[in-house]
Parts: sequence; structure tokens; C-alpha cells
Amino acid sequence: MTATAMNLYDSKAQTLREFVPLKAGEVGMYVCGPTVQGAPHVGHLRSALVYDILRRWLAAKGLRVTLVRNVTDIDDKVLEKASEAGVPWWALAYQFEQEFNAAYRTLGIEAPTYEPRATGHITEMLELVDRLIDAGYAYQATDGSADVYFKASKWASYGELTNQRIEDMVDDAEGQLRGKLDARDFTLWKAAKPNEPVTAQWPTRFGAGRPGWHLECSAMATRYLGARFDIHGGGLDLRFPHHENELAQSRAAGDEFANFWLHNGLVNVGGQKMSKSLGNSTFASDLFTQARPIAARYFLGSAHYRSVLDLHDSALAEAESAISRVEGFLARAERKLGRRDFEGHHDRYQQLPTAFVSAMDEDLNLPAALAALHEAVRAGNAALDAHEDAAAQVELSAVTAMVDVLGLNPNSSVWSVGQGDSAESKALGSLMEALIAERNLARANKDFARSDAIRDQLKAAGIQLEDAADGTNWSIS
Amino acid sequence: MTATAMNLYDSKAQTLREFVPLKAGEVGMYVCGPTVQGAPHVGHLRSALVYDILRRWLAAKGLRVTLVRNVTDIDDKVLEKASEAGVPWWALAYQFEQEFNAAYRTLGIEAPTYEPRATGHITEMLELVDRLIDAGYAYQATDGSADVYFKASKWASYGELTNQRIEDMVDDAEGQLRGKLDARDFTLWKAAKPNEPVTAQWPTRFGAGRPGWHLECSAMATRYLGARFDIHGGGLDLRFPHHENELAQSRAAGDEFANFWLHNGLVNVGGQKMSKSLGNSTFASDLFTQARPIAARYFLGSAHYRSVLDLHDSALAEAESAISRVEGFLARAERKLGRRDFEGHHDRYQQLPTAFVSAMDEDLNLPAALAALHEAVRAGNAALDAHEDAAAQVELSAVTAMVDVLGLNPNSSVWSVGQGDSAESKALGSLMEALIAERNLARANKDFARSDAIRDQLKAAGIQLEDAADGTNWSIS
Repeated sequence: MTATAMNLYDSKAQTLREFVPLKAGEVGMYVCGPTVQGAPHVGHLRSALVYDILRRWLAAKGLRVTLVRNVTDIDDKVLEKASEAGVPWWALAYQFEQEFNAAYRTLGIEAPTYEPRATGHITEMLELVDRLIDAGYAYQATDGSADVYFKASKWASYGELTNQRIEDMVDDAEGQLRGKLDARDFTLWKAAKPNEPVTAQWPTRFGAGRPGWHLECSAMATRYLGARFDIHGGGLDLRFPHHENELAQSRAAGDEFANFWLHNGLVNVGGQKMSKSLGNSTFASDLFTQARPIAARYFLGSAHYRSVLDLHDSALAEAESAISRVEGFLARAERKLGRRDFEGHHDRYQQLPTAFVSAMDEDLNLPAALAALHEAVRAGNAALDAHEDAAAQVELSAVTAMVDVLGLNPNSSVWSVGQGDSAESKALGSLMEALIAERNLARANKDFARSDAIRDQLKAAGIQLEDAADGTNWSIS
Repeated sequence: MTATAMNLYDSKAQTLREFVPLKAGEVGMYVCGPTVQGAPHVGHLRSALVYDILRRWLAAKGLRVTLVRNVTDIDDKVLEKASEAGVPWWALAYQFEQEFNAAYRTLGIEAPTYEPRATGHITEMLELVDRLIDAGYAYQATDGSADVYFKASKWASYGELTNQRIEDMVDDAEGQLRGKLDARDFTLWKAAKPNEPVTAQWPTRFGAGRPGWHLECSAMATRYLGARFDIHGGGLDLRFPHHENELAQSRAAGDEFANFWLHNGLVNVGGQKMSKSLGNSTFASDLFTQARPIAARYFLGSAHYRSVLDLHDSALAEAESAISRVEGFLARAERKLGRRDFEGHHDRYQQLPTAFVSAMDEDLNLPAALAALHEAVRAGNAALDAHEDAAAQVELSAVTAMVDVLGLNPNSSVWSVGQGDSAESKALGSLMEALIAERNLARANKDFARSDAIRDQLKAAGIQLEDAADGTNWSIS
């Protein structure tokens, strides 16, 4: 059903390329997940969201997507913070892993097909190291420690991802070689340090140690997606050295690795780069006190995925206002025409406006896609105003299909986990029935003072009434 | 602060023993989690809940609990079902892992300190196999396959957990030895079968294969809790052979292993054993359509943990009625006296009635603990009826402390994820303010017909009013 061709910007080729799955009908996608050493911030959330939208779009086009997003559950910071807190490193990592997953759920980011933890793949990593040593591209540290390095200095293609030449990389760390043959070589495996806990050490033929960050992702991506797979994604900050090193070591070991490299832009706060030193980090917990989850999702997916997204003062209010317009139209149209359900992917895809499809197909151009969404909302409201039901139905179908694909359907259970049948919801429903009946009785008795008073009272509580041929509907504004 | 001694029934000793932590102030606890090859049913939920309550009780007594609950993410059934569904085994396992965790969250079961996946611990398992081979208690299959067996026939203590003698175990499978020296020997490591996916095979010096179930738990428990730890828990159905084999292989390798073995009883449905063949399995999804999560939790924790819990026709209605009485008292008392918050564990522990503490300390006697809870509710309601505020305050403190410890506090955010500040909640709040003001005005004007009409209208919607000195409070019944 891949009705239309899609272009994606391949960071490695530095150009738009038509995306053609390596295996017809299927997509294998690896996305770098977080190092779980702290709470999730908006930068993490944006990255996860961007690939969630891409995954939804590929699925909407009829492709079967396998998404693997890892958790890096050990590194210097995890060990350091756990030691400071007096808890085991694996307990600290697991706590933050759960915080990330809770934030993803709140935003309606679908769980990946699999979420591997780095430390669960020691066997696969050591196998990769062995292949690299056999190929002559890895070596144990010359100082006798259990460090193992990748010979970047020998891998002719080193720099191909980020368009750099190894010759241009300055070899200026002569005093800090720590057993390296060349300062540009990078760590595959880290020797255990004397004060590190036993659970942070795995035995190898070089001695006890733990994996280097780059090695993890190469081993996990190919384990679950094969030696060659469609898409590798991650934040722009991971392009170098992380992704460059992943690519070098995988290719040197004989794996073709990713066919497309995608990088999402970072998040600024009030025009400034978000950083610990500036103290301007906005965490998931901050975001969710400032905006409804659906508005936060709208905001995080509102810029082009390759642009910087700026969390400026009015950004969340603008997102709230924009998604409210969509919600308002849907509620109004659904009251009149009923909710639009689709008979599978294909039916839904057919309802998408051409402008939306073209925008999504052209490197996931989200601002253009959202413009198509708002255009349909405008046209739909106009049709409702003019009592043109057929035209309104077309727009209702289009808007529903678009918000479905974008993960922004306000009717989705994602936004109301446990809410729909709460005691409060039921009480409000019963009470509204009674008040509407009372108002109808007052109107029948020409007691307009009373009927208006009820309407005003409801309005003050944020509840709108709409009189229709088949009765009075209510909604919360 | 471990104010009082606690007894636990140790399945191995077959008697109550005083529980004294191996390391003062700390408890290490390993609980067998699910094999994620299907959706969670009430049996799984009860087991997880029982150890959640035990963990909360130990924490309430001032102990620092490390709870490790594993996920068995590979076995014959996982591979079989994934193959049938045409999805990778790891994707199927991860999907069910998430379903389990969602059900646990719904029931307010706290996440363990760590939740290791079996396949993430291949290195540790193979180390354990090596130790057993060195000790003379394990051997590679005599038929040359990569199967590795534990020499149960040689381990003199085999049977110590379940009070059986190895001599009494019939050696009747001569024709099916598959490389075993003795039919009673059990599998540590399973040779890969020809049709199994590459991702389900790990290289070993014996050949490619995957871990046996028993081996997994021994390796994970000792990795995270040490060679000797306080408590090993699990369902009664796991006692033999799973736990017997865990104990045998760990002890044969030189680890002391668990100090206490706890086993929870199973769940019957309408008096019958729950089983696939009877088709009477009640899944988490069934349970949550039949009962509010807090009522489901009450039900699952209402029997003694070692007894069979029977899900009979009126069981959930009885639980709903019982927890509603508790909720009703708390709502009523809190309107009058304010919510009771505690200044830490110690303050809360001090408010617990002696009968409750004694019940919990005597092998977690939950029926007796719940009786103490309902006695305090009864006394509290009587004190409120008699306008004895001081006495009511004592009971409010006691009831709040007890429901906190049991994970049954209706005010906990666990029960209202995303509900508290929903649009419906806010609209209802505003509307109630307006209606209460209107009723007060009517009463001031002696328009009792109107004020009564409002009260009746609210009552019909399930909303109760209670007039107090400081105004009118409302609650949903």
C-alpha cells in the first residue's frame, strides 16, 4: 500500500534520498535511547517523539516497522551518581528507565518493538570485539590493562558519517595515550577501575571490565535488526563521535549497518541551548505541570525534526491554543456527525489530504503537515457553520485521519488512562443529564430566566451546551 | 526501628521462624516473576501483590528492602508462540512484559528495585555452569549435544527444599535420557534446536544454546543480592522442581542462597483450580472490567498469603463493599478533621493498632490485619456519630496508617493517574461550587423546596452533601 514515495534526509549522504525499504514492506529502525543517569528532559522527549511520528507514518503507509530503542544502563555517570546516592548502579538506572517510560507513555509515544538494555548484551559485544580483533581493527591496550581500542587511525573510512578526514583530526593527546597506539583510537571496552562495584565488571580474556558506549549500540542494533538495516536515528549531539564510531566499528567488522542516518535537532529554552551549566534544563515533570500531555506532544512535534525547537515563553500556550482548535472542531463535528472510525490502515490513509501526505513524505515536514491539519479544521468549521454536512464529513474524516497518524487524536485512550469511567466522570454525566432536563422543562414552561441561569451556571464551570435536532449536547471547553 | 519481632513461615524448614535480616537494617528479597509468554492472570497478580505487601511491611518496620523480581523472557512457549505469530520472540516477550507491568501499576504494586531479564544474564549463567562443572556437579550431555545437566543424582541434599529423598524419585525415563547420566538430573543449559532463531542462541564452549529456567534465577538472584540473601519468594507451583533445583545448583556451586523460602497459595476460580484446559483463567483485563483497581487489590490481598484465594461469584462485590466502607470513613473523617499526613515511617508506624502489627508480624496474617482495619473504621464512625473528635482523630490516624502500609490508601495518586486535574474533574468542581452556593442562597431565603430539589438532584447523580460548621462538603458515593 506504500502509495507514495518518501524522501528522508540521510545525514551521511547529506542529501534527501528516496526511502526504499531493504526488504519490501518492512522497516528496521534503531534509535539511540537515553543513558539512564538522570530524569528525562525535553530534549530526550523530543527525540523519542520524532521517531515515534516517523514510525507511525511508515506504518500508516502500510509498512511493518520494527523499532529498537536502547537503554544505556551503565556509564561513568551512572556509577558516580549511584555511588553518591549509596544505591546500586542497577537500581538507579532502573529507576530512571521507569521515569523515561512513564514520560513516554504520558506523551502517547508508543513503546518500541524492543527496548534492550546495554548490560544485557555483553556476550554480543564481546563477539563484536573478537571480530574486530580478528580483522585487525581492534587491540588490547599496550599498557597491559583490559582496555580494548578501535584502530580509528587505520580505518580508512573513518569520518565518513560526519564528513571529516582522519588526517585532519589532531593527534594531540600524546601524554594521555593510556595504552592507545594513536590518540584518535577510541575505546571499545573499558577496564574495571579499582573502586568500581563487582556487578559493574564482566570477565573477558583481557581482564574484567565493562562495555564502551559506542560498542553497545552496534551490538544491539545488529542483534535485533541484522547486519544491514534501514534507519539509524538519534539526536544531532550523537552524530560525533558516537555515531561515527558505531559506523566505523560495525563496518570494520564487516556489517553494512544503517542504510539511512537520521538526526533530530535539539531543544533550546528561550533561545538558549539547554545545558546543566546554564541551569535551564526543562524536565518532563516541569513540562507536564505547564501543559496538558496532548499540548506538550503538539509542541514537541511542531517544528521540523531537523530544526532547533525553541521552548520560549509562549510556546506551550500556542501549542495549547492550536490543539484546542483541533479538539474543538472534532468535538463539534462528532456531536453532529458521529465519531469517524476507520476500517484499517488503508481506509484511514485514503482520507488524508494530499497536502498532508506530501508534507510527511518530504522528509517528515511537520510544520507543513500541521498546516494541512489546520486548513482542514478551518474548512470543516466553515462547512458546519453553513450546515453542509457532506462537506463537514469529508473534513471530519480528514482531520481524524491526520490526528491519528500524528498521535494527536484527543479521543485516544492514551490521554485518559483510567479517566473515562471515573466516579467523577460518571457523577458529572448524571448531573448534566439532570440539569439539561431541568433546562428543557424551564424552556417548555417559557421560564427563560431559569433556563438562561442554568446555561450561565454551566458556562461558568467551563461547560458548553449545544442544542441540536436530537437533543442538547454538552462539552467541556 | 524494627520495633517488634516478625515470624515468617519458611517452606524449607516447614515452620515459622523469626525473621532476622542477615545484615542489620537491610533485606534482600528475590521473587520469581513471570515467564512472559502470555497475558497476566489473577494468579500472577496475587503473587506479585503478596510480596509487594510483605515488602511494604518490612519497609514500614524501618528496613531497607532490595526487591529483585525477574522476567523470564525466553523458553519453549515464548519461542513457539512467537513463531506462530510470525514475530521475533523478543518482541513477543517484551509486549507481555509491558502488559504485566501495566497490570502491576494498575494495582498499585510498586516496581521492584530491579527487574532483570533472563537473557540479559547469559555471562553470569555460564559462569555458574563453569563453577558447577569444576565442582563436579554438572556435565555436558553424553550424546555430544550442547545440553548441560546438573547431577541431581549426586547432590546429597537434593530434595531438601521440598522434603523429598532423591532415592524415592523414580528413575523411569531410561529411554529418554538424551545424554543424561541419570533421568533425575536436570537441564542447566539447553542446546539450540535446528529450527530455532539465531537470536535465541548464545555461543558456549559446549556449542550454541540457551539457558534453562532454573539456572536463570540462581544466577540473577545471587548477582543482585549476593551469595546469601534473606528471602526467596514465589508461587506454590514453583516449589518443585523450580525452587528445589535453584537451591541445589546454587548450594552445589558454593552459594548459601536464600535464608527464608516463602510460597504463596494459588488462585481458584469458583472453587476450581484455574487452568488453561478448564478455560476458566481470569486475566488482568477481565479483573479490571469487573472491579475498581483498589477493590481488586483488596480482594487479591484478602486471604492469608499461604491459602488458596477463591475468586467466587460474589468475591469482588464483597471486596468492593469492604473497601468502600474504609473509603467512606476516610472521606467522612477527613472532611471533618482534615487529611492525616505522617512525618515519616516512624510516625506512621506509631499509629498502627497493636492488633494490626501483631497480625502482620505473625507471618503476614492479612485476614487478621484487615479485621483490625475494619474495627478501627467501625470505632471511627462511632466516634464521629458521637461528635467525639479526639477519638475520631485517633481512628483516622490508625486507619490511614494501615491503608498506607497495605497499599490501599484511596488518596494515593496510584488510583488516579492523570485523573485529579482532568477537565471533567475541574468542571465538576466548579459546578458543585455553584450549586452549593445556589442551595445556600435558597436556604437563606427559606426557599426549602428549591434547596431540597438541588440536594435530591445531586443525590440522584451519586453526589452526597454534608453540611459542616465551616461550609458544605460534597463527595461521590
